[in-house]
Amino acid sequence: MVKIAIDAMGGDFGPEPIVRGCIDALKKKKFIPILVGKKSEILPLLPKRYRDKISILDADDVIAMSDAATDAIKRKDSSIYKAVELVKSGEADGVVSAGHSGATMTLATLRLGRLKGIARPALITFMPTKVGTRSVILDVGANVDSKPEHLVQFAIMGGCYSKDVMGVANPRIGLLANGEEESKGNEVTKAAFKLLKGHENFIGNVEGGDIFNGSCDVITCDGFIGNLVLKTSEGVASTISGLIKEYIRKSPIAITGALLMRKVFKLLKKQIDYAEVGGAPLIGIKGCAIVSHGKSNARAIENAIYQAISYVDNHVNEHILEKIQEYNENN
Amino acid sequence: MVKIAIDAMGGDFGPEPIVRGCIDALKKKKFIPILVGKKSEILPLLPKRYRDKISILDADDVIAMSDAATDAIKRKDSSIYKAVELVKSGEADGVVSAGHSGATMTLATLRLGRLKGIARPALITFMPTKVGTRSVILDVGANVDSKPEHLVQFAIMGGCYSKDVMGVANPRIGLLANGEEESKGNEVTKAAFKLLKGHENFIGNVEGGDIFNGSCDVITCDGFIGNLVLKTSEGVASTISGLIKEYIRKSPIAITGALLMRKVFKLLKKQIDYAEVGGAPLIGIKGCAIVSHGKSNARAIENAIYQAISYVDNHVNEHILEKIQEYNENN
Repeated sequence: MVKIAIDAMGGDFGPEPIVRGCIDALKKKKFIPILVGKKSEILPLLPKRYRDKISILDADDVIAMSDAATDAIKRKDSSIYKAVELVKSGEADGVVSAGHSGATMTLATLRLGRLKGIARPALITFMPTKVGTRSVILDVGANVDSKPEHLVQFAIMGGCYSKDVMGVANPRIGLLANGEEESKGNEVTKAAFKLLKGHENFIGNVEGGDIFNGSCDVITCDGFIGNLVLKTSEGVASTISGLIKEYIRKSPIAITGALLMRKVFKLLKKQIDYAEVGGAPLIGIKGCAIVSHGKSNARAIENAIYQAISYVDNHVNEHILEKIQEYNENN
Repeated sequence: MVKIAIDAMGGDFGPEPIVRGCIDALKKKKFIPILVGKKSEILPLLPKRYRDKISILDADDVIAMSDAATDAIKRKDSSIYKAVELVKSGEADGVVSAGHSGATMTLATLRLGRLKGIARPALITFMPTKVGTRSVILDVGANVDSKPEHLVQFAIMGGCYSKDVMGVANPRIGLLANGEEESKGNEVTKAAFKLLKGHENFIGNVEGGDIFNGSCDVITCDGFIGNLVLKTSEGVASTISGLIKEYIRKSPIAITGALLMRKVFKLLKKQIDYAEVGGAPLIGIKGCAIVSHGKSNARAIENAIYQAISYVDNHVNEHILEKIQEYNENN
């Protein structure tokens, strides 16, 4: 059975939603959870009937959001350090953390190491599409100033994830650029295009709008750009919902209308709510790490745990190693 | 009175919405319009009472959307070439075109020339914010692989535009990056940050979400990134509106609700509709060029004409020259 180490500390709301998310996940899926953090804080949150199903690894220290990511490697008593070490030692198959994301990525990369053939691990996130599916985009923040060969590795890793975890048989892999034509792009993407040309499932350049129209399953980009795309998308969604709310507030007729449309807004929220997805997998490391949002509620943690289980169960890393080797042999 | 050359051809819907937009603008503002294009197609669209107010410059050729932008410089009989030449000769103060945007930018840059101290002209667009204002973002597509000094020039030009045309007394100028801290960014933005530090109105790094939350008036970025931000924003807005429509269609109660909320959706559409803005000014050239969307309706053309008038009337170029000189003297 898959063993998941869960950093119980570090999230913006303390251990409560994390412990609850873990319990909720246990109700629906079989896995072995190990909560890592201050035992004195975690234990009271665990109902008696779960105390034999969920083990706790005591960790005194917590990396705060304001701490430097580079400090993480020295603070061996922190919950995230100990959780990552469980993966390193084989006592866990994957780790989930809603704590300091830089610390999680640094520790997962340095302590677990990179997969053979992968120069830089990448962070994946998910975007809702018009057709009801979710597209995968990477890198969304693990790297800046990616080189063309890094983008190629992101593309291959994204393809494996899409196939193994999202269940897309032949994931269409695109390179994010400022136009569809091969001539479009900046220096880095143009060079990456040449390297990816002819690769199975590579569909060429895709534009910002293609992230959401369902025409592409994997969107490949540098982490600086992926971060901007992600934050911009959140900004647009939040602005639109803010404007709708404001306009509604001003008119009794609109309030009535909004009440009748409640179900619509609920469906929409579900579609664009990160909690429904879980967290962002860090792909390219020897192991599995899901980087959850600091504001994760129990539902987000529950889903992040499912992501980790699915990542391990579907042998994503093994497939990446195969595909990277295949690519290197053919190029 | 300000003289505006309007490329009557090249838009996706032919000269009709362009001529109509020109007439609508004339009803509200005083300016001298010169329509450039096939006289035989334009004249029948002009009501008799406007024929002495709007002059037509005959141009046989039209650059099609599928043509290469680089060809534009050779096709001297095209409507956009002739419209730009009117600015060059001083017969017009600005040009508006809904035709091939690459051709318009190439011709405006090469035929009119760059302002002293500006290495690369930039394309500006406008983003709605939560607080009801619009922020200015540049470059959104005139350049890729911008160098730090280009970003500095974009920042200064954006500041002038925001002040002169948008009426922001002290525009807050931000540098688009993957985090607010000075340590965040890629190589280019980190170097640009150093060059901008201490510059009046520079507020440091801003993130994707800051484009829409009203915390920043001018967002500075490379054109590759600006294009992605723009296309992503459009994609999110269109996906959300598509999902809302789809969910509504499925439920009679929601349909009733939507009817009651019609005014809300109308306000929202107005807020995010590019037609309400007009076009994208190409800033940094000796003259004024507004690059309108190929799909521009009459309302978009009308607003693009107002933009051109306002650009000229408010002496944006003179202020850019002053500010660039000031910056160069102090750095």
